[in-house]
Amino acid sequence: METAPTDWRVCPPVELTDLLQHAAEAFSDQGFHGTSVRDIAGRVGVTVPALYYHHENKEAILLAVLQSTMADLLPRGEAAVADGNGDPVVELANLVESHVLHLASRARFVALDSETRYLSPQARNEYIELRRALELMMRRVVERGVGRGVFHAVDVALTTRALLGMLQAIPRWYRESGELGPRQLAQRYIEMSLALLGMPPDECARVSASAR
Amino acid sequence: METAPTDWRVCPPVELTDLLQHAAEAFSDQGFHGTSVRDIAGRVGVTVPALYYHHENKEAILLAVLQSTMADLLPRGEAAVADGNGDPVVELANLVESHVLHLASRARFVALDSETRYLSPQARNEYIELRRALELMMRRVVERGVGRGVFHAVDVALTTRALLGMLQAIPRWYRESGELGPRQLAQRYIEMSLALLGMPPDECARVSASAR
Repeated sequence: METAPTDWRVCPPVELTDLLQHAAEAFSDQGFHGTSVRDIAGRVGVTVPALYYHHENKEAILLAVLQSTMADLLPRGEAAVADGNGDPVVELANLVESHVLHLASRARFVALDSETRYLSPQARNEYIELRRALELMMRRVVERGVGRGVFHAVDVALTTRALLGMLQAIPRWYRESGELGPRQLAQRYIEMSLALLGMPPDECARVSASAR
Repeated sequence: METAPTDWRVCPPVELTDLLQHAAEAFSDQGFHGTSVRDIAGRVGVTVPALYYHHENKEAILLAVLQSTMADLLPRGEAAVADGNGDPVVELANLVESHVLHLASRARFVALDSETRYLSPQARNEYIELRRALELMMRRVVERGVGRGVFHAVDVALTTRALLGMLQAIPRWYRESGELGPRQLAQRYIEMSLALLGMPPDECARVSASAR
């Protein structure tokens, strides 16, 4: 599952096993609580015992969906940062772009994140570790930019959380059928992210425009 | 329920009826789905039929809790804006401060917002209208600031959503027992909000410091 994407700007649907794909759709349509293991088995076209052969319970299925999403998102983010060639401004712009493309193109599955409150503490912790890896990736870029004097942040950890909060609200309202496509949306968020990091408006616009 | 708060900087717990208070605690502890009407009746110390006398069903109870919260938050925000005396920078700083105080001091109940996906479409729409009122309040302040040339925003509606997303992520991680009190947290978010709106770092720091 952990193959580094060759082009982080291309954001196809996350590759899931047939079972996880159907489960994710069921959770998205009916909510985690409104979905039974029997519903999932019915959608996949297998028996309930066959389903239990692969997954311990409904929680384990949700965790597997979330882990597959993260296993796609994290290397994509790393590739985006690597493509910045050590320039924190470009690294941040790339990371924001890769994350917005993910949030916008996969809004339906990304929203499953809110169902994690129903995971067992252990399963929840496994997922939280992955979320932390994403936060840390972004924090390091912010830190490098502050170190070089191109970003301004009074509190790097808090600013990183604010930045992620700003991005992660996207699936709550964004629809691909609206006036902004995922790529234009990414440009706008690059511009706003750099503004949040204290860069002057004209610089924010210049970097955002060069993201095409 | 709709009394304008005399001091929007004071943020006591939202006033709820005894029944709604217990229901909100149950939803927060056990999740909306993990809570039965019987659980709520048990916590309040009334019979299930007595509870149904006041509220149609569990959804109506959740909606009533969320409406009470909004009925407190909205006039508080209006008072904060009014206190800016027509200066969009102060209006925005005040509105951010009042919202952060609410999100930080009431994190447990505010998080019930994520349970709205389980409301019926009609109940959900009623709540969404209230959320829109908050968004509109903030958008108008951003618009005034852009009009006066003190804020920079390529897309006022999108910037307002980014701003709200940044703030509304707070209850997901904030604990009052941590190193930042609600008031300090508010100061940091004032600074970041003004940065997002294109104000230079030293100006952001000056305005944030004057919020005490």
